[in-house]
Amino acid sequence: MTLPLRLYELTGADDSCRFSPYCWRIRLALAHKGLPVETVAWRFHEKEAIAFSGQGKVPVLVDGEQWVSDSWAIAEYLDRQYPELPSLLGDASLTAVTRFVNQWVADSVHPALARLILPDVHAVLEDADQDYFKRTREAAFGVSLDTLAAQRETSLERFGEVLKPLRSTLVAQEYLAGAAPAYADHIVFGAFQWARIVSTQTLLAQDDPIAAWCERMLDAYNGLARQTPAAAER
Amino acid sequence: MTLPLRLYELTGADDSCRFSPYCWRIRLALAHKGLPVETVAWRFHEKEAIAFSGQGKVPVLVDGEQWVSDSWAIAEYLDRQYPELPSLLGDASLTAVTRFVNQWVADSVHPALARLILPDVHAVLEDADQDYFKRTREAAFGVSLDTLAAQRETSLERFGEVLKPLRSTLVAQEYLAGAAPAYADHIVFGAFQWARIVSTQTLLAQDDPIAAWCERMLDAYNGLARQTPAAAER
Repeated sequence: MTLPLRLYELTGADDSCRFSPYCWRIRLALAHKGLPVETVAWRFHEKEAIAFSGQGKVPVLVDGEQWVSDSWAIAEYLDRQYPELPSLLGDASLTAVTRFVNQWVADSVHPALARLILPDVHAVLEDADQDYFKRTREAAFGVSLDTLAAQRETSLERFGEVLKPLRSTLVAQEYLAGAAPAYADHIVFGAFQWARIVSTQTLLAQDDPIAAWCERMLDAYNGLARQTPAAAER
Repeated sequence: MTLPLRLYELTGADDSCRFSPYCWRIRLALAHKGLPVETVAWRFHEKEAIAFSGQGKVPVLVDGEQWVSDSWAIAEYLDRQYPELPSLLGDASLTAVTRFVNQWVADSVHPALARLILPDVHAVLEDADQDYFKRTREAAFGVSLDTLAAQRETSLERFGEVLKPLRSTLVAQEYLAGAAPAYADHIVFGAFQWARIVSTQTLLAQDDPIAAWCERMLDAYNGLARQTPAAAER
């Protein structure tokens, strides 16, 4: 009997508030492969708890004697280590084009979404994390969290623009990866799950094809993502 | 001996000025599959020449008794009709994720690039096409071509923002499709070939990884794309 994998997950003040978009990619990726996991709540100030990984960020996945950090590297590790289980990234060509989806989320979706929800993220954090978060994010965006909150309307319009290619793709097919979800979907859905868990803002119109796909992703893998309550339900 | 395929291509006043990004996708796709093609110059006012296709846009590909319009539909047709030749879109999952690239170019890259080069496109057209082009594009963008030309600096900054995920992907791998180009690359490169043929503007820094990839795409398929002279060379 092998030990289950262990995943360090970013967490708010409330232990069930596991909001990190990168950690959600891996939760969904592990479910996709059917691998059981034990999650460990981790907060920004607990750098020493993951010092073994040689860096200060989650997700960190521990698999027996091995550990892997960085969501993309973890997805590649899971396909390499468990090739007999359903593939996340597919062959070399699918991996390459999926990497573009990864970069689109990193360079376009997350920055646009962060401008909307960073104040909400700040509000769910443990006291010990709030100062660190406020300082690092305000430096990264060159603007205060209060100003971001005041710019909500403009940021929402910009976010809608950025999402256009996702929307038109999901009009033509059920999932980014086609008839069933794969890692491309995990990457993008992580962003919406992040927003769902920290924020009560309405970011999508009810009839938006992206909203329907989010519901499908919440249902996928026996409703895994839905088990974590939305901010609106807390 | 079968007849070669016939491709109707959008053309400027100069017969060698084949600038359409959608037609370039298909020229590269045909080269990828090793299929010979006869191209037919077509201009916006020549609607009757492609009336057989039931619509008024190019590319239109004629293959014996069959014809196909719309670049995505043509790529799917080529893979379906010539499955023994190198694949453009790959299996169902790769096709699905490549469709996202298609939509990213349609919804994000082309609109941002068009704001920069529509005045240049107008300048290369035959007189008979210029009025039609000016009227339809000014209506679509809700702004005059003169105003677009005046907004160049802002538009260039915006275009650079949109390209970020392409840039960071090409830092990690040679082509969007991995170690060798496929239809995902043809889709995106079509935009840069469009700009190269109609415009002398510098849109990328010399050391931009996208510029290096453009050079590789100009070299691909025995230098097919390079055979059409750039605006800067005319």
